[in-house]
This record gives sequence, C-alpha cells and structure tokens, in this order.
Amino acid sequence: MARIVVDVMPKPEILDPQGKAILGAFPRLGFTQFSEVRQGKRFELTVDGEVTEDTLAAAREAAETLLSNPVIEDVVNVAVVEDGQ
Amino acid sequence: MARIVVDVMPKPEILDPQGKAILGAFPRLGFTQFSEVRQGKRFELTVDGEVTEDTLAAAREAAETLLSNPVIEDVVNVAVVEDGQ
Repeated sequence: MARIVVDVMPKPEILDPQGKAILGAFPRLGFTQFSEVRQGKRFELTVDGEVTEDTLAAAREAAETLLSNPVIEDVVNVAVVEDGQ
Repeated sequence: MARIVVDVMPKPEILDPQGKAILGAFPRLGFTQFSEVRQGKRFELTVDGEVTEDTLAAAREAAETLLSNPVIEDVVNVAVVEDGQ
C-alpha cells in the first residue's frame, strides 16, 4: 500500500484571503518572522499495491482536473510517499 | 528569501467528508486506482533572509497552535523549501 501526495496552491497572482488572515493573526501571537502566508491543499491518495507509471499518470490527471481549479490554482507537487509523512 | 512548508492532515480516526466526496467522484471520472482519499492543508510561510533554527522552531509552534487544530488534525510535515515547489 502506497500513497500519492498531491499539493495544490493558489496561483501567485491570486489573492489568498485565508493566508492573509493567518498573516494578520501572527503578530498578535508573537510570530514576527514571516512576511507572507499562502494556504493551499494537500491530498493523499491511497493506492492498493504498487504505484506504477500509469497510476502516477492517473494521479496527475486527477490533480489537474478534479483536485485543483486550473483557473486559480497550480498543482505544485505530485509525488509518491512510502510511509511516514 | 526562503519558504517553510507546513502540511496538516486530518487525524486518521477522524472522518474526512471532503476526501470521501472526492473518492466518490473518482469512478465517475474513470479513476479506479485509488482506494482512499484524504484532504488536508498545505501552508507556505515566506521568510525574509535565512531560515534559522529559531525561525523553524517558530514555524513548528505556529503549525501546532494556529495552523492546525490538534483535536482533529496532525501536523505531518514542517520543512524548508529552497525554490520550485
């Protein structure tokens, strides 16, 4: 059993209100180290058995068509993770 | 300028309705390779200058206190990314 991780982030030119809200809350909590925050999505797709090239291609297609909105989001990462994270 | 990525996922024992909805949509779109889908969050924190141990510790604290709800979510990854993803 393996997992494929898909990371989706708002495009750089798109306003990210959730990230802005977090950035606004940081100073009140004592965090002054960060100059920008962007919030995106992380998906974990579980695959029974081995991850083949076909499975990875299917994950990439799913990432572009269902898991992200290509108008406002970029798929920044599609990768197999063995265990742990 | 560097970025710290924080990944947050729903705890395994917590129901994830968004992941279930995606899993339900997969067969209709021809994706039959995946047996489970979980949806979490990915944050990118921008740091001006170098990432020090203190900055990383602050990011870890922010991840545990503000970016995740420890009752229902796990912080699965806090890592520095240099560029690209």
